[in-house]
Amino acid sequence: MRSIIYIAAILFLYKHTKALDNGVALTPPMGFMANMATFPIETLIRQQAQLLVSGGYLSAGYEYIIIDDCWLNMTRAPDGTLQPDNKRFPSGIPALADYVHSLGLKFGIYEDYGTETCAGYPGILGHLEQDANTFAQWGVDYLKLDGCNVDVAQMDTGYPEMGALLNKTNRQIGYSCSWPAYQEFSKITPNYTAIADSCNLWRNWADIDDSWESVYAIIQWFADNQDRLAPHHGPGHWNDADMLVIGNFGLSPAQSRAQMALWSILSVPLILSVDLHTISDWAKDIILNKNLIAINQDPLGAMGKRILKLSNSIQVWSKPLLNDRTAFVVLSPEPYGTPIHVSVSLENLGLTRYQDYDFFESFDSKYIGKYHYNQVFNFTVNPSGDVFAFYTSPPH
Amino acid sequence: MRSIIYIAAILFLYKHTKALDNGVALTPPMGFMANMATFPIETLIRQQAQLLVSGGYLSAGYEYIIIDDCWLNMTRAPDGTLQPDNKRFPSGIPALADYVHSLGLKFGIYEDYGTETCAGYPGILGHLEQDANTFAQWGVDYLKLDGCNVDVAQMDTGYPEMGALLNKTNRQIGYSCSWPAYQEFSKITPNYTAIADSCNLWRNWADIDDSWESVYAIIQWFADNQDRLAPHHGPGHWNDADMLVIGNFGLSPAQSRAQMALWSILSVPLILSVDLHTISDWAKDIILNKNLIAINQDPLGAMGKRILKLSNSIQVWSKPLLNDRTAFVVLSPEPYGTPIHVSVSLENLGLTRYQDYDFFESFDSKYIGKYHYNQVFNFTVNPSGDVFAFYTSPPH
Repeated sequence: MRSIIYIAAILFLYKHTKALDNGVALTPPMGFMANMATFPIETLIRQQAQLLVSGGYLSAGYEYIIIDDCWLNMTRAPDGTLQPDNKRFPSGIPALADYVHSLGLKFGIYEDYGTETCAGYPGILGHLEQDANTFAQWGVDYLKLDGCNVDVAQMDTGYPEMGALLNKTNRQIGYSCSWPAYQEFSKITPNYTAIADSCNLWRNWADIDDSWESVYAIIQWFADNQDRLAPHHGPGHWNDADMLVIGNFGLSPAQSRAQMALWSILSVPLILSVDLHTISDWAKDIILNKNLIAINQDPLGAMGKRILKLSNSIQVWSKPLLNDRTAFVVLSPEPYGTPIHVSVSLENLGLTRYQDYDFFESFDSKYIGKYHYNQVFNFTVNPSGDVFAFYTSPPH
Repeated sequence: MRSIIYIAAILFLYKHTKALDNGVALTPPMGFMANMATFPIETLIRQQAQLLVSGGYLSAGYEYIIIDDCWLNMTRAPDGTLQPDNKRFPSGIPALADYVHSLGLKFGIYEDYGTETCAGYPGILGHLEQDANTFAQWGVDYLKLDGCNVDVAQMDTGYPEMGALLNKTNRQIGYSCSWPAYQEFSKITPNYTAIADSCNLWRNWADIDDSWESVYAIIQWFADNQDRLAPHHGPGHWNDADMLVIGNFGLSPAQSRAQMALWSILSVPLILSVDLHTISDWAKDIILNKNLIAINQDPLGAMGKRILKLSNSIQVWSKPLLNDRTAFVVLSPEPYGTPIHVSVSLENLGLTRYQDYDFFESFDSKYIGKYHYNQVFNFTVNPSGDVFAFYTSPPH
């Protein structure tokens, strides 16, 4: 049976990688977003880039370093070319991109589809082709295109236009669209088919902040909207739940494990926002966890779904992996103070195709045991935002 | 000038230690509350007691081990004596208390002033004198008396009655009253003068849970009500903000530092709720921080107050310490993601009595520098619930 599943997986891959036709982001993008308030100057961005390499983040898969809003000069050059704030970026963007590339990293940049960015710097409206060419000439590998200061109705034509112009440069530029996020907030139902045809990834909903409240609200939003999001999600085109805030100040270790596990099972981009100079060991261990990253980067690229709601607000998520394995995350969001014992049948987990399944804990790949399809799986999950993460495999 | 301040401090101590007249709790009680769901049996409580000693908690000041609701048998003995659930406590309470004492710890127990405890076990109503004598005979050093299942109007006479009966046993029993918490929730203004005369400590408000939301709500409640709470607070009689949840699952390291710093500056009891078997090193370091404990246990016993609200919801707390030192905590509750630079004048900090002040960081007592009373103090505080804690001392 496994060979049939495998072929199905290959077909699934083939079908989806056609989307934007730029060959980019066949697994969820992984990288680092430099918040310009934290790291106001080029020197600090270069230091973070170095730390992405020396700290083992690049070898784990975090390959993009992306600069956020506030990198621009308030005016374009006389010929209309975008130019950076030369006090913040004295070497200029091409030199910074070269440096990033010399480290083996990819270089991402922020712009806005409107007349101005959210912070009031020049947007691309009226300069789409020129700016696409500028980004390609500068060596940009990833463009996050925000949607401030423009009519939301204009986005359905504007974002695809910019996607086509980026492709026309013949440079592979990952294209991150804020398009549906603005539509969702304006109560306009996004055309996710069109979005997936034009963008490699797209922010769907609220900006994350450094709190469990925010992380959990995003998790709930994705669960509540999973049936309309998941069909458009896969290699080359990804829903985006926003950055990992692990390692900042607001999440406990348990809640950090939860963000890593949920972002992995959702197959959404893993974009770091932590200061790599001061990150604690426990946060680094979570961010660099090989097994969770492998679940996130699984080639099937399926968007995991919330499949069960149990008592005490406990929820079970699952996602199919290559080779008929399945990843699960059990989230216990409520602050009850004591670990909770959970029993769930393999039938309720959707594990009925094989006679037996091997169960493994996901964070350390520790073997849990073999279970028959008509058995019950018992485990303990800590409260207050912790998770129990596991995956199953049919017997070999 | 220092000698005058010191004499004032001694007078302040003398005035306040008269309260319940039992000589207990001259500094805020410190200990460990065994949640009966986490540690359902006597064996586990004995293990936690051992860990309080071997882990260095007792030598740091955490001297009480207190068992929470659910220790009782559903019925009293034929002679009316309270009896424990003998499956959960096979050795009985006196043997457990002896064991706790043999480790150098003090033994606390939970009961309820009503007909039943909150979990439905026998309350003390109708048995006050018998139960006070039973606790004394058993070797109980601390009684937490909850207020479920009784008319709140009855508390103003009932709690003092039990306090007097406990004192009559001639055993020093710390007396923790839930009395004002039930009144606050019933919108009855508690008579804190009477409460401070009858109780060593009293829960004022909501039960804490394992989340920053809960910790921050309690901090805000104490700030909003500080002017009516602080006058009744001091050696022998303490407002109680509920347990430390540091080391459980819901607080980040930053938020854990915040709880430790705020509980210390409030001079409220430090009662642990973490499983000492599995506590992480960073949480243990915060809980055992010598300087924060010294601020909490400062002999003046003043309740710290919120003295300033700055932009970005940043708030400054201060508390006078012995020898004209002053402890400060700056709390930055909002999840902005980046550290915030703060400037505040010594005048606004209330530091105008001396020409110069030495500033020290509180968590590690690191010397920051000397400031003149007309200078401005600049520092950085992380967001999302972190704190910057410092103290000042006049020059020696």
